Amino acid sequence: MDIEPAASDHKKAGLFARGWSWLKALPEKLKAKVVEVANKVRKIGQDDPRRIAHALKVGLALTLVSLIYYYRPLYDGFGISGMWAVLTVVVVFEFSVGATLGKGLNRGFATLLAGALGVGAHYLSSLCGNKGEPIVLGLSVFLLAAASTFSRFIPGIKKRYDYGVVIFILTFSLVSVSGYRVDKIIELAHQRLSTIVIGSLICVIISFCIMPVWAGEDLHNLVAQNLEKLATFLEGFGGEFFKNLDDGEIVVVSGSGKSLADYLKNSEGETGSVSKSDKSFLQKYKSILTSKATEDSLANFARWEPGHGRFKFRHPWKQYLNIAGLARQCAYLLEALNGYINTEIQRKIQDVCVTMSSESGKALMELSAAIKAMTHPSLADLHVENCKNAARDLKTTLKTALLENSDLLGVIPSATVASLLVDVVVCTEKIAESVHELAKLAHFKTVEPTVTPEKSQLLHRGTVNPLAETDSPEVVITITAGPSEALPEGANPRAPVTGKHVHGSVNICD
Amino acid sequence: MDIEPAASDHKKAGLFARGWSWLKALPEKLKAKVVEVANKVRKIGQDDPRRIAHALKVGLALTLVSLIYYYRPLYDGFGISGMWAVLTVVVVFEFSVGATLGKGLNRGFATLLAGALGVGAHYLSSLCGNKGEPIVLGLSVFLLAAASTFSRFIPGIKKRYDYGVVIFILTFSLVSVSGYRVDKIIELAHQRLSTIVIGSLICVIISFCIMPVWAGEDLHNLVAQNLEKLATFLEGFGGEFFKNLDDGEIVVVSGSGKSLADYLKNSEGETGSVSKSDKSFLQKYKSILTSKATEDSLANFARWEPGHGRFKFRHPWKQYLNIAGLARQCAYLLEALNGYINTEIQRKIQDVCVTMSSESGKALMELSAAIKAMTHPSLADLHVENCKNAARDLKTTLKTALLENSDLLGVIPSATVASLLVDVVVCTEKIAESVHELAKLAHFKTVEPTVTPEKSQLLHRGTVNPLAETDSPEVVITITAGPSEALPEGANPRAPVTGKHVHGSVNICD
Repeated sequence: MDIEPAASDHKKAGLFARGWSWLKALPEKLKAKVVEVANKVRKIGQDDPRRIAHALKVGLALTLVSLIYYYRPLYDGFGISGMWAVLTVVVVFEFSVGATLGKGLNRGFATLLAGALGVGAHYLSSLCGNKGEPIVLGLSVFLLAAASTFSRFIPGIKKRYDYGVVIFILTFSLVSVSGYRVDKIIELAHQRLSTIVIGSLICVIISFCIMPVWAGEDLHNLVAQNLEKLATFLEGFGGEFFKNLDDGEIVVVSGSGKSLADYLKNSEGETGSVSKSDKSFLQKYKSILTSKATEDSLANFARWEPGHGRFKFRHPWKQYLNIAGLARQCAYLLEALNGYINTEIQRKIQDVCVTMSSESGKALMELSAAIKAMTHPSLADLHVENCKNAARDLKTTLKTALLENSDLLGVIPSATVASLLVDVVVCTEKIAESVHELAKLAHFKTVEPTVTPEKSQLLHRGTVNPLAETDSPEVVITITAGPSEALPEGANPRAPVTGKHVHGSVNICD
Repeated sequence: MDIEPAASDHKKAGLFARGWSWLKALPEKLKAKVVEVANKVRKIGQDDPRRIAHALKVGLALTLVSLIYYYRPLYDGFGISGMWAVLTVVVVFEFSVGATLGKGLNRGFATLLAGALGVGAHYLSSLCGNKGEPIVLGLSVFLLAAASTFSRFIPGIKKRYDYGVVIFILTFSLVSVSGYRVDKIIELAHQRLSTIVIGSLICVIISFCIMPVWAGEDLHNLVAQNLEKLATFLEGFGGEFFKNLDDGEIVVVSGSGKSLADYLKNSEGETGSVSKSDKSFLQKYKSILTSKATEDSLANFARWEPGHGRFKFRHPWKQYLNIAGLARQCAYLLEALNGYINTEIQRKIQDVCVTMSSESGKALMELSAAIKAMTHPSLADLHVENCKNAARDLKTTLKTALLENSDLLGVIPSATVASLLVDVVVCTEKIAESVHELAKLAHFKTVEPTVTPEKSQLLHRGTVNPLAETDSPEVVITITAGPSEALPEGANPRAPVTGKHVHGSVNICD
């Protein structure tokens, strides 16, 4: 009974103290918040400095177009229509040249077409007398707006001309309707069109001349990066994870999901897994899973762009989408594979897995490098051949593993990983074909088969696989020799060099 | 020698005849083209009749807003600013209520804020004298435009307020700059704001009252449909494909890619595969792979919408995105699985596979039905339990299969399919948890555990699995009894009914 009032006092005092400390901490908190936001903003700018440039370019374009208002000679010429130029700059100026050009052209042509139609509708309605005029105008606006709005659902129009249709509806309504009041309709239409052209031109010229951002180049880089991300995962999967296995240690890496291995382990109470899930490079490929929308819009914008730098007009942008689609297929497989990282891999099968994984990783890395440098991806062919051979060897390896092993169940998860990797190999081959096709279509440079000393070293580091030693004679070792030094003059660097794998024309991967 | 001129004549005549027949066929071809386009357009309308309604609604809104121009009293009130109402309707009217409301609110508030700032900038600059005025105005436009444009790269702003920022830049530039010429700037700003409000209101009212399209409802249905698509694949995978196997026939269905089975078969020259790849229901799940953008934007729009029908304001839309994300994870697995349809499945493993596949399919179907009906997904729990049990049984089954089988390699592809299906089971369980969470958050109705006669029959047809009979005593048969009739009164319908599977609290799938 005694305690309660004291406790209440205590509470009050506590409340006051807390309120005071909250107030005292407020400036600190505000400062922290401001710093946090500032850091976030700085990071956005650092991630892609072209964003800062873009913001400044928009500011510049708007200031330029304001000149129409500031200077009396220009203002006298355009009158209130000058605001259309301001409006045009705000809505047309986009991040990339292609998007700006596409929007500008859409806006220009739609205004021209709708303006002409609007003047026509105005003339037609004026024939119908004073009473009929608003009815005819209203009806024409209703029908054209409804039809145009519906046309925006047609995929082909939505993809490239969506903005044009919006401007078409807008201009037609404005011109035909304001014609009912403003008598000098032709003059108005002319002013509107010319200010829009001026606005669009300012946008296009600025985005073209000052640090241009090319959607085509972005697409090119994005596709190359996506292949690189796949390669990073596969090389990591093959290289990093099984590195420790040479010491006889079993590495189990915890994946995101619960896999077969868990079910198999569960009742046997096995533990002792080494968590390495913080390897962020294994998560990079995930961005590919959802990059379709970005790629599609980049390809769309790229088609509006004129030739620039290494890219000609009518560069085969569509082929990039094909490669990107295959890369996504591969990413789906990696997503399935990612769940199986959580698996104890049998020593024998593991060797083949490492070969398949790292060789397809290297092939993808070479393909990515070839796209970046715009050269023929001939250096990738050897790796593709290697991983195909490894896939072929899998059969023998699996048989051995199954026959030798007492723990038959233990083989199953390993076999699953191997199966998925075979799919990855098939996918890699398709990607390689697609990149070859791109190289043909876009006339990529052919690289000389002679390899410079530095290049050779690089290749060597890339292809020699120290993990491929095994203790069983039945397990066929995949060729890992560098492609250059061992070759007799005139030999085809694409063909496998030695070993049992010179199957010649047997193409099992079509 | 004689033949050549004759041939040339013949050629000429042929050219003429071909030209003539081309001309004659032209109207036919044109007609065919028109019919084709008309069919395409009709299909777009038939696929979603709300599109036609939307087009008509836009036409109506535009005609209504034109009244401002037609009627002198209104025109005298607003003057040339009436065109802002037309402009607002064209750009604000979107397909769903949420999108329209979001754009309308963005436009209204951005105009208000930017208008006020613009008037302020105008007042400030007028203090700087005749020479300083354009410099101060130009600088303020440049700085604000650059800063606002940059803010559009911040994800949080881009997601919900992108349009608002565009309108902010637009209005600020227009007001501050035209203030330099037009003296009655406050009046102009007021007119502009009121016409924009009128335009937005017309849009919102029409999209609200005439056949409203709710983004939230679309999201709700899309998520339910996605689960159904997954279920269709899994039930098809489990049901259709192995149906014929009871006659002892091996069914091989050709998938899209080349899988391990091909590599294994290749050198042994096996053939005789039955192609069933034309089963289109097996391809439906593919749309889920790339539906993320649609879901995100629908969820975004849904947050602007007030309560409607079965959905309250602040319905947990985010939870739908969680379920959709898990469904996509599952779709990635199906994509990997799809490549393995091309596999001869071992008889024993197949039974477990069929159980896992069809039970997770049924669980997803129940979850989808529960979302559609907005009831607690308790009916799915039994199926989830069943497929978890099947996954647990897999170990025993695999051991038997491996011990019994002479063709050890033949087991591998089957084991791969089984492993992938285990992942699907895990994913199904996560989806079920997520739907339970949604049911809790959105206060879904609880269904009575008593089952109506029709419902019971349906359940029965769904759960009794004729394939689960096996000849090996070691293979544990999954419980397939219906949940209702066999239950004693008061028993928990979620708990497994009989057999070895009453593991109680052992939750191996967290």
